[in-house]
Amino acid sequence: MSEVFGARRSLLRARCAATGCAAALVSRPANVRYLAGGAPPGAVLLIGPGEDLLLCPSKPTGDPADGRPDEQLRLTVLPSSAGDPAVAAAELTRTADVESLAVEEHHLTVARHRALGSVAPRLRLADLGLAVEQQRMVKDEDEIACLRIAAEIADQALGELLESILVGRTERHLALELERRLVDHGADGPAFATSVATGINAGRGGHRPTDRRVEEGDFLSVCLGANYRGYCCEIGRTFVIGTTPADWQIELYDLVFAAQRAGREALAPGAECRDVDHAARQILDAAGHGEGLAALTGHGVGLEIDEDPQLGPAAMGKLDACVPVTVEPGVHLPGRGGVRIDDTLVVRQVADGGPELLTITTKELLAL
Amino acid sequence: MSEVFGARRSLLRARCAATGCAAALVSRPANVRYLAGGAPPGAVLLIGPGEDLLLCPSKPTGDPADGRPDEQLRLTVLPSSAGDPAVAAAELTRTADVESLAVEEHHLTVARHRALGSVAPRLRLADLGLAVEQQRMVKDEDEIACLRIAAEIADQALGELLESILVGRTERHLALELERRLVDHGADGPAFATSVATGINAGRGGHRPTDRRVEEGDFLSVCLGANYRGYCCEIGRTFVIGTTPADWQIELYDLVFAAQRAGREALAPGAECRDVDHAARQILDAAGHGEGLAALTGHGVGLEIDEDPQLGPAAMGKLDACVPVTVEPGVHLPGRGGVRIDDTLVVRQVADGGPELLTITTKELLAL
Repeated sequence: MSEVFGARRSLLRARCAATGCAAALVSRPANVRYLAGGAPPGAVLLIGPGEDLLLCPSKPTGDPADGRPDEQLRLTVLPSSAGDPAVAAAELTRTADVESLAVEEHHLTVARHRALGSVAPRLRLADLGLAVEQQRMVKDEDEIACLRIAAEIADQALGELLESILVGRTERHLALELERRLVDHGADGPAFATSVATGINAGRGGHRPTDRRVEEGDFLSVCLGANYRGYCCEIGRTFVIGTTPADWQIELYDLVFAAQRAGREALAPGAECRDVDHAARQILDAAGHGEGLAALTGHGVGLEIDEDPQLGPAAMGKLDACVPVTVEPGVHLPGRGGVRIDDTLVVRQVADGGPELLTITTKELLAL
Repeated sequence: MSEVFGARRSLLRARCAATGCAAALVSRPANVRYLAGGAPPGAVLLIGPGEDLLLCPSKPTGDPADGRPDEQLRLTVLPSSAGDPAVAAAELTRTADVESLAVEEHHLTVARHRALGSVAPRLRLADLGLAVEQQRMVKDEDEIACLRIAAEIADQALGELLESILVGRTERHLALELERRLVDHGADGPAFATSVATGINAGRGGHRPTDRRVEEGDFLSVCLGANYRGYCCEIGRTFVIGTTPADWQIELYDLVFAAQRAGREALAPGAECRDVDHAARQILDAAGHGEGLAALTGHGVGLEIDEDPQLGPAAMGKLDACVPVTVEPGVHLPGRGGVRIDDTLVVRQVADGGPELLTITTKELLAL
C-alpha cells in the first residue's frame, strides 16, 4: 500500500508546483488520511519540496478509525506545549527556504491562517483549493474494495433487522440496534448517524430518530452506512409495516422507485452530473412532487460520506469511471410520511457491465 | 426561557458595541444555540444593530438535538440556492447601514471569510474572538439543572452495566450497550464517543473501544456522558474484574483516587485553574508518573463536552462560582493498563456547600 500513498503525494506535489507553490500544507483530516494513509487526531501533512512530513500533536495510537500512517513517511510527534501543528509546519518552512505554501483555505480558520502568517511573515500563503478533494474523486480498486465490504456490512445489518420484530419499537432503538449490528459485522463504526423514520416521519432525508414507535400501516424508512477502513457507504430502504400496503403507499413507492432507477441508469462515464439528477428528479416533478425535493439526488462517497461529485440541478462537471456515488431520491408528504430509496454504486463503462451496485438489499416493497 | 436568550444576546450586543462593532455574526453551532435557543444545522445568528436574525439553510425540524429556536427571534429560512447563510448575513448588512461586523475568526474558514468580504466590500470585518465562549463559561441554574439530569442519566447507565456480566464481552459491545442505556434513560444521545478500555488499554485517555474482550484480573476503565437538551456531562470510573485486585492495582488506584480528590477539593471560586491542575498532578508526579500524564486534568463542560476553562499547567484565569468542570486524572502504564477517575462538578462557594458533585457513582475500587 505504501507506494500508493507516495504516488498520491507525488501527484499533489506536481499539481502544486504547476501553480507556483513549492510546498503544501494539508489539514483537512480526510485529505491527510488519503495522502498519508492515516490521520491521527489533529495531524497535518506538509508536502515537501524536500521530504514530506506528518506532524502529529500526540503519538498515533494505531486506532483503525484514524488509519495507519504510511511507514515511508517521516512522522514528527510534537510536544504537548507546541500548540497547533499547522503553525509548527509553517515555522519549519523558514529553515527550508520555501517561499510559498499552499494551504486549504476551505478548511483552515481565519485565526489559524493568521497564526501561520505571523510565525513565518515572509512566507507567501496561497490557496491549495480543492486539489486533494478532486484527486480523491476517482477511486482505485483497493478503495472500491473497501467500499464493497462496507456495503456488504450495511446490507447484512439491514437484513438482520428485517427478520426481527419491529412493531412497538422506537426509531431510536432500531437505529442503535442497526449501529450495533454494523460493528458486529466488522465495521469500524457507522459511516454517519443512522436514520430510522416511521409513520409521518418516513421519507424525510436525514431524519434523526425520535421516540416514535413503529405501528401497523406505517411506512418505515431506514438509512444507514458502514465505515470500513475509513471508507463510507450508504443504503436506504423503505418498507411497509403490516400485511397489505395501502394504495397510496404502493403508488408513492413505485414512483420513487422509478425515479431512483432512472438515476441509476443515467450513471455512466462522461454523463453530466446534473443530467443524472434530472433523470430522477423529472419523474418526481412530473408527478407533482417537485417542490419539496432535496437539493441533491446523490453525492460521492469515499473517505467522507458526503464528497464530490454532487448530483444536483446546478452541479457542474461530468462523471468518470470508478467514481462511487449514491442515488437517493425521496418524497415526503407532510403529515403522511414518504419513501426514500438509496443505493451506493460505482460508475463503470458499459463494457465493464455499467454501474456497479454495491448495496444489494432488495428494492421490492416489502411488507414486514 | 425566551427572556434568557434575549438577555444573552443583549449582553453580547453590549460587549460588541464596546469594541466599536455595531453587529456580530455568530457561526459556531454551540454559540448559536446558546444565544438563539436552537441551532438548526448550518444556521448563523446575526446580532443586530436592529432586530436579531437567525438565518437557516433549511426549515428547522424541531429535532431536540438542535434545540428549539427562541420564538422571540426573527428566523429566516433561505432558499436552497442561497448558499452560505453567513454570506447572506453579510449581504444584509449592506442594506442596514452597518459599517463593521464582528465574526468568529476561530470558527470561520479563510474561504468563507473571503466570501463575506466580497459580497460586502465596504463592510469592515472585525474579530469577535471568544466573546460568546467566555459568556458561556458561568452557567445559570437552568443550565446546571440540565447538566444534573445528564449526570443522573450517565450514573444510571453505568450502574446498570455494573450489574451485568462483563467477562468475555468486547470493549466495543460494552460501549454500544452503554450508549443504548443512555438513550433509554432519556439522553438525547451520548455526549461523546463512549470509551471502554480493558487490560493493557485501561486508563488510556480517549481510548476508542476495540475488539479486546474483558478478562479476569483486568482493570476496566469506562468513560461516558449523556447529552441532555444540549448539555453534556462526563463520568469515568475504573474497576477490577475478578474477586481480588492485585497489590499493584490497589496501589495505583489509591494514588489516582488521591490525585482526583485533591483536584476536586481545590475547586473553589477564585482558585487559579492551574492550581487545580497542580493539586492533582503533583500527587501523580511525586509517585513517578509525571511523564505520561495528559496535558489537562480537567475542562469545562456545557453545550460542548470540552469547553473553557482548561485545567492545565499553563492555564490562565481563575474559576468562578457556577462553572461546571471535569476532574479526571489518570495514569496508564504501557503494557499493563491503568486507572482514570473522572467526575463532573460545579464550582460553588463554601457557604453553598463547596463543589457540587454531579456524577455520584461510587469511587470505591469495585471488584466485579
